[in-house]
Amino acid sequence: MAVDLRAVLLSAFDYKTEKYVIAKNKKVGILYRVIQLSLLGYIIGWVFLTKKGYQETEESIQSSVITKVKGVLLTNSSGTGPRLWGPEDYVIPQQGEDVLFITTNFIETPNQKLGYCAESFKVLDGRCRKNEDCPEGEAVVAGNGVRTGRCLKKDRNSTGTCEIYGWCPIEKSQRLIVPLLGKTENFTIYIKNFIRFPKFGFSKSNVLDTAGDSYLKTCLYDAIAHPYCPIFRLGDIVLRSGHDFQDMALLGGSIGILIEWHCDLDKGYSHCHPRYTFTRLDFNSTANSVSSGYNFRYAHYFKNPAGETHRTLLKVYGIRFDIQVHGRAGKFNIIPTIINIGSGLALMGAGSFFCDMVLLYMMKKSTLYRERKFEKANKYVI
Amino acid sequence: MAVDLRAVLLSAFDYKTEKYVIAKNKKVGILYRVIQLSLLGYIIGWVFLTKKGYQETEESIQSSVITKVKGVLLTNSSGTGPRLWGPEDYVIPQQGEDVLFITTNFIETPNQKLGYCAESFKVLDGRCRKNEDCPEGEAVVAGNGVRTGRCLKKDRNSTGTCEIYGWCPIEKSQRLIVPLLGKTENFTIYIKNFIRFPKFGFSKSNVLDTAGDSYLKTCLYDAIAHPYCPIFRLGDIVLRSGHDFQDMALLGGSIGILIEWHCDLDKGYSHCHPRYTFTRLDFNSTANSVSSGYNFRYAHYFKNPAGETHRTLLKVYGIRFDIQVHGRAGKFNIIPTIINIGSGLALMGAGSFFCDMVLLYMMKKSTLYRERKFEKANKYVI
Amino acid sequence: MAVDLRAVLLSAFDYKTEKYVIAKNKKVGILYRVIQLSLLGYIIGWVFLTKKGYQETEESIQSSVITKVKGVLLTNSSGTGPRLWGPEDYVIPQQGEDVLFITTNFIETPNQKLGYCAESFKVLDGRCRKNEDCPEGEAVVAGNGVRTGRCLKKDRNSTGTCEIYGWCPIEKSQRLIVPLLGKTENFTIYIKNFIRFPKFGFSKSNVLDTAGDSYLKTCLYDAIAHPYCPIFRLGDIVLRSGHDFQDMALLGGSIGILIEWHCDLDKGYSHCHPRYTFTRLDFNSTANSVSSGYNFRYAHYFKNPAGETHRTLLKVYGIRFDIQVHGRAGKFNIIPTIINIGSGLALMGAGSFFCDMVLLYMMKKSTLYRERKFEKANKYVI
Repeated sequence: MAVDLRAVLLSAFDYKTEKYVIAKNKKVGILYRVIQLSLLGYIIGWVFLTKKGYQETEESIQSSVITKVKGVLLTNSSGTGPRLWGPEDYVIPQQGEDVLFITTNFIETPNQKLGYCAESFKVLDGRCRKNEDCPEGEAVVAGNGVRTGRCLKKDRNSTGTCEIYGWCPIEKSQRLIVPLLGKTENFTIYIKNFIRFPKFGFSKSNVLDTAGDSYLKTCLYDAIAHPYCPIFRLGDIVLRSGHDFQDMALLGGSIGILIEWHCDLDKGYSHCHPRYTFTRLDFNSTANSVSSGYNFRYAHYFKNPAGETHRTLLKVYGIRFDIQVHGRAGKFNIIPTIINIGSGLALMGAGSFFCDMVLLYMMKKSTLYRERKFEKANKYVI
Repeated sequence: MAVDLRAVLLSAFDYKTEKYVIAKNKKVGILYRVIQLSLLGYIIGWVFLTKKGYQETEESIQSSVITKVKGVLLTNSSGTGPRLWGPEDYVIPQQGEDVLFITTNFIETPNQKLGYCAESFKVLDGRCRKNEDCPEGEAVVAGNGVRTGRCLKKDRNSTGTCEIYGWCPIEKSQRLIVPLLGKTENFTIYIKNFIRFPKFGFSKSNVLDTAGDSYLKTCLYDAIAHPYCPIFRLGDIVLRSGHDFQDMALLGGSIGILIEWHCDLDKGYSHCHPRYTFTRLDFNSTANSVSSGYNFRYAHYFKNPAGETHRTLLKVYGIRFDIQVHGRAGKFNIIPTIINIGSGLALMGAGSFFCDMVLLYMMKKSTLYRERKFEKANKYVI
Repeated sequence: MAVDLRAVLLSAFDYKTEKYVIAKNKKVGILYRVIQLSLLGYIIGWVFLTKKGYQETEESIQSSVITKVKGVLLTNSSGTGPRLWGPEDYVIPQQGEDVLFITTNFIETPNQKLGYCAESFKVLDGRCRKNEDCPEGEAVVAGNGVRTGRCLKKDRNSTGTCEIYGWCPIEKSQRLIVPLLGKTENFTIYIKNFIRFPKFGFSKSNVLDTAGDSYLKTCLYDAIAHPYCPIFRLGDIVLRSGHDFQDMALLGGSIGILIEWHCDLDKGYSHCHPRYTFTRLDFNSTANSVSSGYNFRYAHYFKNPAGETHRTLLKVYGIRFDIQVHGRAGKFNIIPTIINIGSGLALMGAGSFFCDMVLLYMMKKSTLYRERKFEKANKYVI
């Protein structure tokens, strides 16, 4: 399938004859060249320089994230006495994974025992007016225990709540005013991130090789001053995501930490650096409202000397940090280079055809151009 | 690189002359037009309307999933007395992540102490016929403890099991008949999902902005009646995946909850909705058999007044819910529009060439068409 | 857009006339054919046979991983007496997920109580020379508790450490020499992996259907002898990643287990097999140094008869196994077949044009070829 070579010779490369056409119809000629140049610019500037079309790329990054939070804190809530919080208590789970929850507030209910008490009035399904509203053995929906069949109420005509068998006393619903663990703002998280591009056998860590132990013991991440320090202040992370730590600490939330590795391996090992981005994930831009937070409950179980079980229930609020690693590496390879040059040439051809179409059928003075073109062709053909 | 313009003029656009060809050879002409129309249909119908080729797309969705399970349950196993299960007990891990395990059955072994007892007969490596079969200090493979060097057997000739040092009494192997926590079928899970398409700065949640707190307290997901309620009954989820909750609860299993966000951002914020799909993941279609379930063990440790440690071992069976979020958003952008129009035109050209090839070399009466074509060409050329 | 058909006829398919050109200019002709053949080879060999261009592919694999570790172990550290480690103790988290940590070493600090003691001398921020260095109520950065305002030191001029309120006694910093749980090398992990390609409705498990229970009780993965046994010895996994288990066990590390499913569904169900790859993830190839390991702390809380809380703190070192599942399935589909044939033909055309360009402008003896070409063309045209 050979494209007509004469036409190629005449219109695209034979500058002498073309100049004659341009002389006759400058606008047509200029447009023609502009389109050709912009296509060439697209191929060289965009495909080769910006998109690095001469490189083989690898998107499937292998990554390992190990995190470690440091900091201790003393809380002294009225009911339950002093409580010391170390990372083994406020980081959940403790095993230093890439998703970690930092407790920033809590409601403690100590010394719960299995027994009988009244359901919370806040639980809709637990309200009752007579004993028949509390069928025995049926659990209260979204409640704290199983109904015993009795309705507990202050006086005859009021609405009461069902008696339940469950962990008593039940958790008091409390209005939270300040985050009890607000000082976690100053705690630090050390993020060790190892990556590997298996196709290129390239591996690197976000901890600089040149950074000694002493640097790691004192440095703190800062986008400008210390971009390669892997230790982050929790308050700074929240701040960089555009929110306030103390606001978020009250009811909890979710923050995404994105580590991006865009590596041009042609430039050498030391030019491959991580880039950190912080975003609040549980945020609804349109509603202009922050979601109602992040909390869950867990319990510590104990046995008294008699062998009876009691427990301490904790409802904890906090911030979940979700570390995600993305990456892309590129390295020169002959195959994509050839393919891109080839498809570039094909595009040039298609562009050239497109130009002809435009010039022949859409320009006002196209008749002249058409005539000249055939004239030229005939000169050679006949 | 100009494609020969005369040929273009003559064969593809000069309708008058072409009509003549069609008159002479209708079949060839019709096929020619059919192919051209189907290419045009492909470009407009498929590339632009179906695949939305005029849009820039974003596939890397940022997502945050927070889950909360509600429901309490009382079990009363013969050996261990009443036990109240709240979400803090039957959901593992408790921190409301996107992968959560719901306990549906369990075997409890209370009051284990470190000591000496016989290995289970079910453990192959623990069987013995004489003391030499039980080398002291060696752990039983897949067993419960470390051999003490003694072989315990009922009488001289029978096969016994090694004495071990471990947590005694060892767990009794039990045949499970009913799921003890089968009532979890009626429990609900609230899935809060926040997504963000960073390229477009678009964020949304699966909880409707218009949905008040009261709606969320009473609604239940239903594909038809309540497609935007983020609260799911566990039994419904399993049912929608095509399985039975009570069957699955006995030995456990794994369910995938897929949340898909396919958003056409040209249509506006309110047209971007999540779609939920439920699949059983631990299922082997060909073998027509469900795997042997999902279980694991954990222990609660206690100390008696004398400071000795004892523990309660729990082997729990249950269903793991794995919430995955996928998404794709598209928005009008001039660059993909231009690229798609360009490659569409190029394809039209290639298609045209293909037609010529077919017509010239593969059709029976192609000779006539070929003659006509050159005839036309010569008319202009000479 | 019809490409000039005469040129097609003359240069690419009219072998007779071409032979004449070749006779005149063999080098040019051979190069021409070589390029054409290599393009044809690329399309048939690469696009169709190697890349299977006739198949529709599915990359979004649905996967479920359930893991189970087996093995028990007795440690007898000097301070704390014998300790039996079962999977419920050394696997964290216990719920058999796709990311699991195996404890291989630990430092135990039993019987910690809230009280007053001296901060560790290793904590830089805890050192002091006078009481004013220890502001009351302020937590020691990266330390173990909250300062009380007193500076404890041996004599007047030495550097001491602040007194803290925290869990006392504080953890002793110990130099680790051998991994206390080094025997975990012989423990096994059973990896159940279920996959699904939703587009094709194809699901499979890495456990062979033909494998009976007895096979699974005795087999052990081996790349050659037992490639389909899903039970792996931990020591073998580390070995296959190119490292030594005992070295890694001392301070911990991170291993990636990649399960790849490349399935050609045209070949049938039984030809779709998983392939396992093992890599050490926390490894920095250039620095030639292994990172400083993987450890974290957790605590078990107890209450004594008087209701006072005490705890056992464990600093555990270990190996994290990160199981990742990748997959790609292909099945014959008419649409990609047509698209690939079409773009193949277009590429042939572009290649042909490229050849002409090369021959006309870059070869030395191109003048002859150019002349012959036009000669041929004229023969037909006039």
